[in-house]
Amino acid sequence: MALMVDAVNARTRLLEAAVEAFAAKGFHGTTTRDIAGAAGMSPAALYVHHRSKEELLYEISLAGHQRALALCEDAIAASSDPERQLVDLVRDFVRHHAVHHTIARIVNYELAALSAEHRAEIDALRHRMDALVRDLVHRGAASGRFTTPEPAMTGAALLSLGIDVARWYDEAGGWSPEAIAGHYAELALRMVGSNGSSPS
Amino acid sequence: MALMVDAVNARTRLLEAAVEAFAAKGFHGTTTRDIAGAAGMSPAALYVHHRSKEELLYEISLAGHQRALALCEDAIAASSDPERQLVDLVRDFVRHHAVHHTIARIVNYELAALSAEHRAEIDALRHRMDALVRDLVHRGAASGRFTTPEPAMTGAALLSLGIDVARWYDEAGGWSPEAIAGHYAELALRMVGSNGSSPS
Repeated sequence: MALMVDAVNARTRLLEAAVEAFAAKGFHGTTTRDIAGAAGMSPAALYVHHRSKEELLYEISLAGHQRALALCEDAIAASSDPERQLVDLVRDFVRHHAVHHTIARIVNYELAALSAEHRAEIDALRHRMDALVRDLVHRGAASGRFTTPEPAMTGAALLSLGIDVARWYDEAGGWSPEAIAGHYAELALRMVGSNGSSPS
Repeated sequence: MALMVDAVNARTRLLEAAVEAFAAKGFHGTTTRDIAGAAGMSPAALYVHHRSKEELLYEISLAGHQRALALCEDAIAASSDPERQLVDLVRDFVRHHAVHHTIARIVNYELAALSAEHRAEIDALRHRMDALVRDLVHRGAASGRFTTPEPAMTGAALLSLGIDVARWYDEAGGWSPEAIAGHYAELALRMVGSNGSSPS
């Protein structure tokens, strides 16, 4: 039992060290020695817990994408009103990208470093997220609640706004994740041409 | 004269090779040997033309930022109407980030790799760009042409939308830079709460 706890702790320490290293020097600029060293282990010990540097990136990327997708699914499941769904989705998605900006940067900027097999799995999650947002905008437009000539491109722009928050968000800046999330939800209603009263 | 042309050609070849290498493997994952090799030169020859790998990144970053800033300045100088200025600025800025997406990614994602002195110079250009867009939204709001409760945050969102196009834009996708630029200009008018007729 103690051994199992040690192994879980070691795995977690290595994942945390990998996040810090990838964020600071990029995937290709990081060695397994850097990661093992930051986790207080030998390079050989790293391979007991993770098959490779790419496997670490994949685990970080998978967890990050699963979490972002779950936020979107939860927002859509919580209501049948497209405006309410959009406000909740954008608010939670933007807040997530501000709070978890270090992981979100790795998740979004290091896709090209994944193996072909892992990349296909992550791309499938990204396509599900794109489709959820695009379908939400389509549904709102079809019901007359939204007015937009380009639902698919508007969906891309909505996700884009949230993802880019991870690039520029700075804890030392004057805006809280909550304040950005609230204003961006308002911007999202404007972008889709919401014609109801704001539910925010 | 022939020697001078050769030197200019060598500098340009090295800059192009650096762009490709930084885009593929990140700044920290790229060696000066990689860059020199891709330009058909020895590592020693690289140092005849560029002081360091960081100097190459700085030159790419400086040119990219100067060009993006010039686009914004030109759009604002071309009209005195805030709607016209916004439409032109967003359209040109978005088109630029789609067409030059490889350079734009390096310019926006490798800021942390610049020396402190170079970073300060680039940050000054970024602050001028932020201020131009924020002031444009403020001016439109003050004159009653735009309605937005958060001009500064809306300005950040407008630049964010354009910059993130560089991340996801794919020549093989179905959307042309022109189509994205046109739709995003329309989204920008909605985001600022433009109450005039669309000038696009």
